[in-house]
Amino acid sequence: MEKVNFEEKFPLFNDYWSPKIVGELNGQLVKFAKFKDEFVWHKHDEEDELFFVLKGTLDIAFRDKTVTLQPNEFMIVPKGVEHKPIAKEEVWVMLFESASTLNTGNTVGELTKRDLDRL
Amino acid sequence: MEKVNFEEKFPLFNDYWSPKIVGELNGQLVKFAKFKDEFVWHKHDEEDELFFVLKGTLDIAFRDKTVTLQPNEFMIVPKGVEHKPIAKEEVWVMLFESASTLNTGNTVGELTKRDLDRL
Repeated sequence: MEKVNFEEKFPLFNDYWSPKIVGELNGQLVKFAKFKDEFVWHKHDEEDELFFVLKGTLDIAFRDKTVTLQPNEFMIVPKGVEHKPIAKEEVWVMLFESASTLNTGNTVGELTKRDLDRL
Repeated sequence: MEKVNFEEKFPLFNDYWSPKIVGELNGQLVKFAKFKDEFVWHKHDEEDELFFVLKGTLDIAFRDKTVTLQPNEFMIVPKGVEHKPIAKEEVWVMLFESASTLNTGNTVGELTKRDLDRL
Protein backbone atom coordinates (compact mmCIF):
# COMPACT_ATOMS: atom_id res chain seq x y z
CA MET A 1 0.00 0.00 0.00
CA GLU A 2 2.24 2.73 -1.35
CA LYS A 3 1.58 5.96 -3.14
CA VAL A 4 2.45 6.37 -6.81
CA ASN A 5 4.03 9.53 -8.23
CA PHE A 6 3.85 9.73 -12.00
CA GLU A 7 6.91 11.93 -12.33
CA GLU A 8 8.94 9.15 -10.71
CA LYS A 9 7.44 6.36 -12.81
CA PHE A 10 7.55 7.73 -16.34
CA PRO A 11 11.34 8.06 -16.56
CA LEU A 12 11.56 4.32 -15.84
CA PHE A 13 10.46 3.33 -19.33
CA ASN A 14 10.80 4.57 -22.88
CA ASP A 15 8.79 2.27 -25.10
CA TYR A 16 5.76 3.74 -26.79
CA TRP A 17 2.31 2.16 -26.86
CA SER A 18 3.32 -0.28 -24.15
CA PRO A 19 1.22 0.39 -21.02
CA LYS A 20 2.73 -0.38 -17.62
CA ILE A 21 0.54 -1.48 -14.71
CA VAL A 22 0.82 0.87 -11.73
CA GLY A 23 -2.26 -0.06 -9.74
CA GLU A 24 -5.12 -2.50 -9.49
CA LEU A 25 -8.54 -2.11 -7.90
CA ASN A 26 -11.96 -3.69 -8.23
CA GLY A 27 -10.93 -5.72 -11.28
CA GLN A 28 -9.63 -2.59 -13.00
CA LEU A 29 -6.08 -1.62 -13.80
CA VAL A 30 -4.36 1.75 -13.62
CA LYS A 31 -1.69 2.00 -16.30
CA PHE A 32 0.89 4.55 -17.36
CA ALA A 33 1.81 4.75 -21.03
CA LYS A 34 3.87 6.88 -23.37
CA PHE A 35 2.33 7.46 -26.79
CA LYS A 36 3.97 8.89 -29.88
CA ASP A 37 2.82 8.94 -33.51
CA GLU A 38 -0.31 7.13 -34.58
CA PHE A 39 -1.84 4.03 -33.06
CA VAL A 40 -4.24 1.72 -34.89
CA TRP A 41 -7.98 2.04 -35.26
CA HIS A 42 -9.61 -0.33 -32.80
CA LYS A 43 -12.47 -0.82 -30.36
CA HIS A 44 -13.05 -2.77 -27.19
CA ASP A 45 -16.27 -4.71 -27.50
CA GLU A 46 -16.80 -5.20 -23.78
CA GLU A 47 -14.74 -2.56 -21.99
CA ASP A 48 -14.93 1.17 -21.49
CA GLU A 49 -11.58 2.93 -21.36
CA LEU A 50 -10.45 6.14 -19.66
CA PHE A 51 -7.59 8.29 -20.95
CA PHE A 52 -6.19 10.93 -18.57
CA VAL A 53 -3.41 13.08 -20.01
CA LEU A 54 -0.57 13.90 -17.63
CA LYS A 55 1.85 15.57 -20.04
CA GLY A 56 1.65 16.57 -23.69
CA THR A 57 -1.29 16.61 -26.06
CA LEU A 58 -3.31 13.58 -27.11
CA ASP A 59 -5.70 13.48 -30.03
CA ILE A 60 -8.27 10.72 -29.95
CA ALA A 61 -9.73 10.25 -33.39
CA PHE A 62 -13.24 8.87 -33.78
CA ARG A 63 -14.95 8.11 -37.05
CA ASP A 64 -16.90 11.40 -36.85
CA LYS A 65 -14.65 13.74 -34.86
CA THR A 66 -11.35 14.16 -33.06
CA VAL A 67 -11.08 15.12 -29.39
CA THR A 68 -7.88 16.80 -28.20
CA LEU A 69 -6.87 16.22 -24.60
CA GLN A 70 -4.46 18.51 -22.77
CA PRO A 71 -2.83 17.77 -19.40
CA ASN A 72 -5.34 17.29 -16.60
CA GLU A 73 -8.11 16.41 -19.02
CA PHE A 74 -9.66 12.99 -19.35
CA MET A 75 -12.12 11.23 -21.57
CA ILE A 76 -13.98 7.94 -21.40
CA VAL A 77 -14.28 5.98 -24.63
CA PRO A 78 -17.31 3.69 -24.30
CA LYS A 79 -17.10 0.06 -25.29
CA GLY A 80 -17.73 -0.61 -28.94
CA VAL A 81 -16.61 2.82 -30.14
CA GLU A 82 -13.82 2.81 -32.71
CA HIS A 83 -10.97 5.14 -31.86
CA LYS A 84 -7.37 5.87 -32.74
CA PRO A 85 -5.02 7.70 -30.37
CA ILE A 86 -2.62 10.09 -32.08
CA ALA A 87 0.29 11.89 -30.41
CA LYS A 88 2.14 14.39 -32.58
CA GLU A 89 4.72 14.67 -29.80
CA GLU A 90 5.34 12.30 -26.89
CA VAL A 91 2.44 12.25 -24.46
CA TRP A 92 2.15 10.71 -21.01
CA VAL A 93 -1.19 9.06 -20.33
CA MET A 94 -2.85 7.39 -17.37
CA LEU A 95 -5.33 4.68 -18.33
CA PHE A 96 -8.13 3.23 -16.21
CA GLU A 97 -9.65 0.13 -17.68
CA SER A 98 -10.79 -3.39 -16.96
CA ALA A 99 -8.05 -5.91 -16.31
CA SER A 100 -9.20 -7.79 -19.39
CA THR A 101 -8.57 -4.89 -21.79
CA LEU A 102 -6.12 -5.50 -24.62
CA ASN A 103 -4.42 -2.34 -25.89
CA THR A 104 -5.32 -2.91 -29.52
CA GLY A 105 -8.83 -4.20 -28.79
CA ASN A 106 -10.17 -6.02 -31.82
CA THR A 107 -7.17 -5.11 -33.99
CA VAL A 108 -4.63 -7.67 -32.89
CA GLY A 109 -1.26 -7.22 -34.57
CA GLU A 110 2.28 -5.97 -34.15
CA LEU A 111 1.27 -3.32 -31.63
CA THR A 112 -0.63 -5.74 -29.39
CA LYS A 113 0.87 -6.02 -25.90
CA ARG A 114 0.11 -8.90 -23.56
CA ASP A 115 1.60 -9.68 -20.13
CA LEU A 116 2.21 -6.04 -19.28
CA ASP A 117 5.06 -5.03 -17.00
CA ARG A 118 4.32 -3.63 -13.56
CA LEU A 119 6.18 -0.57 -12.33
CA MET B 1 -18.66 11.43 -25.11
CA GLU B 2 -17.00 14.65 -23.95
CA LYS B 3 -13.69 15.38 -22.33
CA VAL B 4 -13.54 16.53 -18.70
CA ASN B 5 -11.20 19.28 -17.50
CA PHE B 6 -10.82 19.38 -13.75
CA GLU B 7 -9.98 23.09 -13.63
CA GLU B 8 -13.38 23.79 -15.18
CA LYS B 9 -15.29 21.42 -12.90
CA PHE B 10 -13.96 22.23 -9.44
CA PRO B 11 -15.12 25.87 -9.37
CA LEU B 12 -18.67 24.60 -9.90
CA PHE B 13 -19.04 23.36 -6.33
CA ASN B 14 -17.90 24.35 -2.87
CA ASP B 15 -19.16 21.72 -0.45
CA TYR B 16 -16.55 19.57 1.24
CA TRP B 17 -16.67 15.78 1.53
CA SER B 18 -19.41 15.64 -1.10
CA PRO B 19 -18.07 13.82 -4.17
CA LYS B 20 -19.50 14.72 -7.59
CA ILE B 21 -19.76 12.13 -10.35
CA VAL B 22 -17.79 13.15 -13.46
CA GLY B 23 -17.50 9.84 -15.29
CA GLU B 24 -18.64 6.24 -15.32
CA LEU B 25 -17.00 3.19 -16.80
CA ASN B 26 -17.10 -0.56 -16.28
CA GLY B 27 -19.27 -0.26 -13.18
CA GLN B 28 -16.85 2.23 -11.66
CA LEU B 29 -17.32 5.94 -11.03
CA VAL B 30 -14.89 8.80 -11.43
CA LYS B 31 -15.63 11.50 -8.86
CA PHE B 32 -14.25 14.93 -8.03
CA ALA B 33 -14.30 16.05 -4.40
CA LYS B 34 -13.06 18.89 -2.24
CA PHE B 35 -11.82 17.88 1.18
CA LYS B 36 -11.03 20.09 4.14
CA ASP B 37 -10.41 19.25 7.80
CA GLU B 38 -10.79 15.69 9.06
CA PHE B 39 -13.11 13.01 7.77
CA VAL B 40 -14.25 10.00 9.80
CA TRP B 41 -12.48 6.71 10.26
CA HIS B 42 -14.10 4.15 7.99
CA LYS B 43 -13.51 1.22 5.69
CA HIS B 44 -15.19 -0.24 2.64
CA ASP B 45 -15.71 -3.95 3.16
CA GLU B 46 -16.08 -4.82 -0.52
CA GLU B 47 -14.52 -1.99 -2.50
CA ASP B 48 -11.02 -0.74 -3.19
CA GLU B 49 -10.73 3.03 -3.52
CA LEU B 50 -8.29 5.22 -5.44
CA PHE B 51 -7.38 8.76 -4.36
CA PHE B 52 -5.58 10.95 -6.91
CA VAL B 53 -4.63 14.43 -5.68
CA LEU B 54 -5.07 17.24 -8.20
CA LYS B 55 -4.40 20.24 -5.95
CA GLY B 56 -3.26 20.64 -2.35
CA THR B 57 -2.01 18.05 0.11
CA LEU B 58 -3.97 15.06 1.39
CA ASP B 59 -3.03 12.98 4.39
CA ILE B 60 -4.57 9.54 4.54
CA ALA B 61 -4.31 8.20 8.05
CA PHE B 62 -4.19 4.45 8.60
CA ARG B 63 -4.10 2.75 11.99
CA ASP B 64 -0.33 2.23 11.70
CA LYS B 65 0.87 5.10 9.49
CA THR B 66 -0.09 8.20 7.56
CA VAL B 67 0.56 8.64 3.85
CA THR B 68 0.81 12.17 2.46
CA LEU B 69 -0.24 12.70 -1.14
CA GLN B 70 0.86 15.72 -3.17
CA PRO B 71 -0.56 16.76 -6.54
CA ASN B 72 -0.13 14.10 -9.22
CA GLU B 73 0.23 11.33 -6.66
CA PHE B 74 -2.30 8.59 -6.12
CA MET B 75 -2.89 5.76 -3.73
CA ILE B 76 -5.18 2.76 -3.67
CA VAL B 77 -6.76 1.88 -0.33
CA PRO B 78 -7.69 -1.80 -0.43
CA LYS B 79 -11.07 -2.99 0.74
CA GLY B 80 -11.31 -3.65 4.45
CA VAL B 81 -8.56 -1.20 5.41
CA GLU B 82 -9.57 1.49 7.88
CA HIS B 83 -8.57 4.98 6.82
CA LYS B 84 -9.29 8.63 7.55
CA PRO B 85 -8.59 11.38 5.00
CA ILE B 86 -7.27 14.61 6.51
CA ALA B 87 -6.81 17.90 4.64
CA LYS B 88 -5.17 20.68 6.60
CA GLU B 89 -6.00 23.02 3.74
CA GLU B 90 -8.52 22.53 0.94
CA VAL B 91 -7.51 19.71 -1.39
CA TRP B 92 -8.94 18.67 -4.74
CA VAL B 93 -9.19 14.92 -5.22
CA MET B 94 -10.18 12.61 -8.03
CA LEU B 95 -11.69 9.34 -6.81
CA PHE B 96 -11.98 6.17 -8.78
CA GLU B 97 -14.13 3.53 -7.16
CA SER B 98 -16.98 1.08 -7.63
CA ALA B 99 -20.39 2.59 -8.24
CA SER B 100 -21.56 0.94 -5.02
CA THR B 101 -19.05 2.77 -2.79
CA LEU B 102 -20.51 4.95 -0.01
CA ASN B 103 -18.21 7.81 1.02
CA THR B 104 -18.27 6.94 4.72
CA GLY B 105 -18.10 3.19 4.16
CA ASN B 106 -19.17 1.38 7.34
CA THR B 107 -19.41 4.61 9.36
CA VAL B 108 -22.81 5.91 8.29
CA GLY B 109 -23.64 9.28 9.82
CA GLU B 110 -23.90 13.00 9.21
CA LEU B 111 -21.16 12.96 6.60
CA THR B 112 -22.70 10.16 4.56
CA LYS B 113 -23.67 11.26 1.04
CA ARG B 114 -26.09 9.32 -1.13
CA ASP B 115 -27.51 10.22 -4.56
CA LEU B 116 -24.44 12.14 -5.62
CA ASP B 117 -24.69 15.03 -8.06
CA ARG B 118 -23.23 14.72 -11.54
CA LEU B 119 -21.18 17.55 -12.96
